[in-house]
This record gives sequence, structure tokens and C-alpha cells, in this order.
Amino acid sequence: MKKRIYFNDVVARDGFQMESNFVPTEAKIKLVNELSHCGFAKVEVTSFTSPKAIPMLRDAEEVMGRIERVSGVEYSVLVPNLRGAERALEAKADELNLVMSTSETHNLANLRMTREKSFAALSEVIRHVGARAPINVSLSTSFGCPMEGDVAQSVIEEYADRFAALGVRGLSICDTTGMANPAQVIRMAESLQQQLPNLQLTFHFHNTRGMGLANVLAAVQSGITRFDGSLGGLGGCPYAPGASGNIASEDAIYMLDEMGFDTGIDIPRLLDIARELPNIVGHEVPGQMIKAGLNCNLHSAPPYVEALRHPPKCA
Amino acid sequence: MKKRIYFNDVVARDGFQMESNFVPTEAKIKLVNELSHCGFAKVEVTSFTSPKAIPMLRDAEEVMGRIERVSGVEYSVLVPNLRGAERALEAKADELNLVMSTSETHNLANLRMTREKSFAALSEVIRHVGARAPINVSLSTSFGCPMEGDVAQSVIEEYADRFAALGVRGLSICDTTGMANPAQVIRMAESLQQQLPNLQLTFHFHNTRGMGLANVLAAVQSGITRFDGSLGGLGGCPYAPGASGNIASEDAIYMLDEMGFDTGIDIPRLLDIARELPNIVGHEVPGQMIKAGLNCNLHSAPPYVEALRHPPKCA
Repeated sequence: MKKRIYFNDVVARDGFQMESNFVPTEAKIKLVNELSHCGFAKVEVTSFTSPKAIPMLRDAEEVMGRIERVSGVEYSVLVPNLRGAERALEAKADELNLVMSTSETHNLANLRMTREKSFAALSEVIRHVGARAPINVSLSTSFGCPMEGDVAQSVIEEYADRFAALGVRGLSICDTTGMANPAQVIRMAESLQQQLPNLQLTFHFHNTRGMGLANVLAAVQSGITRFDGSLGGLGGCPYAPGASGNIASEDAIYMLDEMGFDTGIDIPRLLDIARELPNIVGHEVPGQMIKAGLNCNLHSAPPYVEALRHPPKCA
Repeated sequence: MKKRIYFNDVVARDGFQMESNFVPTEAKIKLVNELSHCGFAKVEVTSFTSPKAIPMLRDAEEVMGRIERVSGVEYSVLVPNLRGAERALEAKADELNLVMSTSETHNLANLRMTREKSFAALSEVIRHVGARAPINVSLSTSFGCPMEGDVAQSVIEEYADRFAALGVRGLSICDTTGMANPAQVIRMAESLQQQLPNLQLTFHFHNTRGMGLANVLAAVQSGITRFDGSLGGLGGCPYAPGASGNIASEDAIYMLDEMGFDTGIDIPRLLDIARELPNIVGHEVPGQMIKAGLNCNLHSAPPYVEALRHPPKCA
């Protein structure tokens, strides 16, 4: 039996929110539906933030209301506060994804409050939602902060404990700006699994420094089975302009599939969807598989090869 | 004590031979000298092929004659045949790198002869060179052929045995078109090291499908300590146009350095050199580190952060 790996595609939220041009609502709905039919375990559909804060996702209600709900797929949404949680519940999201940074400076820069203020606000959301929907908390900058540098693993472990005590279902350990290395990933993965064996742990990597898939490999080797990825590698980080963003779902999934894991994904179909992405966003995307194709799509040999293979015996 | 990893940069040969514009001789010499002073264990300088076959490297003698020979750095050259071996010895190369494919079709397509004819020709070169210089043999398409598909590991093991019996110092196991996955790399690395414990084994990966650094990680975990890389990720594969080529030396080296290995490389200096590469070749290069920078190069927080960090107590 192949070991099952669960992928969550975040392009519709994490990818599109970084785009400079609004992705039309119809295109978002079509893409989410295509991802659903491809075999993703989860799709992060949108964000119930204020339309002023993230105008790219101002159509959150409409997208959530009109996507197909494919059986077996969880539809998750980002929720920043109580108001967002109410909107998400109304939209019948399968999961609410809350977010805070493990670095004080990054939390202040990104969410404009201290980590403790964020923790208190998210605690209130968690209590308010109660049993109405499962909650995931994304811990940003868990492998380093672009402004502070190192973030001690003990800080992540402490927030993990505190959120687990509030009854969240899962945590995403996020390498927000691509600072993780595989040795660090192994230490983090082993420690958190031992500490909180009943929590759904998802690892979220960026390919900013080219190490995204190496970090996925390290995490898988350490027993992690849930990953975020973004179709085409969209998304990214304002601190490394020009560098890659999120790991490309299709690249990570292909690697694991080739290694013999069961990702549940129809990979040729996924590549077809990924190849449409540049038309949706109006620019090239960093993913490699859409350029290289599957290993099994063989090329024809040059015409002179056959003659060389069977040279005339008595020429 | 940190474990030592040895890097061979192949940009001046494997990278430049794929370029459409001739890289001026002065630029090649300057780049090789800069790589030498950066701490590389080996630099593949050029190829003693016919200038008609690879016009980009038609200045092989001049480049080899005018580079600085930095102590501790080995200067390797590609050699296709007896004539090339003579030229390489005359140019005082520290190592001769011979090449053949483990896939029959790729060998026919690339070298226009059967594998057995290649093996016989390289055997003659090895006997002819004798003790005058150490020999490395690069086995192309060791992880798959873009025209044939899978290449059985036993084929690589067989050629490895036969070349070892001829007294070569080392073998490079090459993923010529980026078809390897980490599970396959681990199987190959473990098997070859057990089979030929006294041979210098170098692993050569491409990032065609985004897995280059994951494959480096897998190889290092399996005990491999020698790698090829190409500055900026130059080079590549005509079967996947637009996709990445060789792994970028600076990306792989940074990953291993961050993991705690001793690569011997002055990484800030290496990034400075890599950042010059687009000016030399006239186009962008795929490496990520030159866009993202080191983790330790921190960014300043937005101005509002300090006020939020210390809110007035009695406002």
C-alpha cells in the first residue's frame, strides 16, 4: 500500500491575493472546480478579509456560493477576525484558517498588532466558532522572519501548544518567506509530531531560495503527510521580489508521485490546469513541470539514430 | 566537525556550450578565476572537442593556458576522444572527464555511436592516458532517457564496474535531462557506494522538473559528498525548452551550508559572481539565491512597527 499524502492548493487565495490584476470571479470559480476534480484533499478558496484590505478577493461570498462542492474535497477559507468568521460560517466553509506570525516584528508589520493581541483575538474567534466548523491556524514565519531573522523553534512549539489547548483541529507551519532548510524542517517536524500527535499538521513551504521541494522531502521523510502548494508556484513574498513564491503544487506532487506516494491527484489533468494559469494571471509562472512535462512523455530520437543502431553488416 | 562536501562548478563548460552567443575568452578566464578563489574543489573549465562540434568552446587551449591555477582547486576538462585527451594533457588539465550515455538511444543521438563503441573508444583513451592524469567518466542519462524512458539501475552498475576495472578515479552519475526523483537517487547512491567503495562518486543533477535540490538532499543523506553544479543554473536540456537546466551551484551550496555542511565556499562572494552572470550571457538565469539573497540579509520593518511595538501606556 502506498502512503497517502494530502495536498491543499492555495492558489485561489494565497496566489491570487498577490496579483496586481483582479482575477475575474468566473475564472476563480472555474479554477477551484477544476482543482476539486483533480483530486486535491483541500482547496483554500478565498479570504473573508475586508475587501479594502485585499481587493483581489472582494468576491469571496460569490466564489464560495457558486463553486461546486465535490465530495471528498474540503473547502477552506482564510479568516482574520470575528466578522470574517461569521461570513465564513454563513458561506458554509468546511474549515476556517486563522493566521498569525510567530515573529513579533512580522506580526506587527503584517497584522498591525502584537502577537499576544493576535493570539487573544484568534482565541475569541475559536471560542465563538465552537463546534460549528473545524479550525486550522497558520503560523507564519515559523522557519525565520525576513526582518528579525531566526525564530526559535520553542516559540512555534509554545504557540502550537496554546492553540491545541483551545481545541483547533490543525496547524500549518509556514515558511512564509522561504527561509527554511531541510535540517531545520526535520527538527521541527519531529518535535511537533511528538508534542502534539493528534493535531493535523500541514507544512507550507516557499521556493524563494530554491529549497522548497527539498523541504517537502525532508518533511515527508519525518512523517508529515499534509502540505500546502500553490498551482504554478504563484504567490510569494514582497521581501524577495523576482524570486519564486509558494512551491508549485504540481512540482511537489509529481516528485512525491514519482517516489511512490499516493497523492490522490490526477497529474496529467493537473498539468493541463496549471498550463492555463498564465492566461488567467497574464504572466509566466515559476512551476517547472508545465515546461518540462512528465518523464513518461518521451521524445522521438533524431532520424539518423535508427541507421546507426543497425549498421549494414557488409557495407 | 562539519562534514565536508565537494563542489565542481561546470558552468564554463556545460553552461556555456549551450549558449547561443559566444562568451568572450576574457570573460571565461575571469569567471574561472573567480570561481577558483571562491573555494570550489573543482572547476570544469572547457571541452577539448572539435571547434566545429562545439564552437562556443573553440578557445579551449587559450582558456586553459591563461587561467590562474589556484592551489587546492582541480581543473577538469571534457575529453571526447584520443585527440582531445592529447590536447588536454598538453594543456596540463588536472583531470580528464570522459562521457558516454547509459541509454543506447541517447548515446546514438548524442555521440552517434552505440554504447559499446563508445565504451571501446573511451577504454582506449583511458589506456592511452595511463598514469599521466586521473580520469573521471560521466555516465549520462543514468536516471532516465528522454527518448527511451527508464534506464535500469543495473545498466549503470555494469558500466560503473567496467570503468572501475579500467582504473578510472571517479564516475559522475548524471541526471542529464532532470528525470531523477529522490527515492531513485537514494537507491542508486547506496548501491554504487557499496559496489565501488573506493571510487570517487559525483552526482550531477538538473532542475528540469524542480527536484534538483531535493535530489541533492537525498544523495547527501545517502553518503554522497561530491556534486556538480552550474553557476546560476545555466546549461540545460534541449528536450525541455524553457525549463531549468543544471542545478544552480549557489542554491545547492547554500542549502547544504544552512544545513551545517562544510562546502568550503565563500557564499557571499559566490553570489556576487553569480549576479554578474546575466551580463556575461545576456539573459536571466534560473538560480533563486541571486534573487532572494541570504537569509541573514534582513529587511527593515515598516516605520509604523515601532509605534505599535510600544503603544503609549496612558493614551
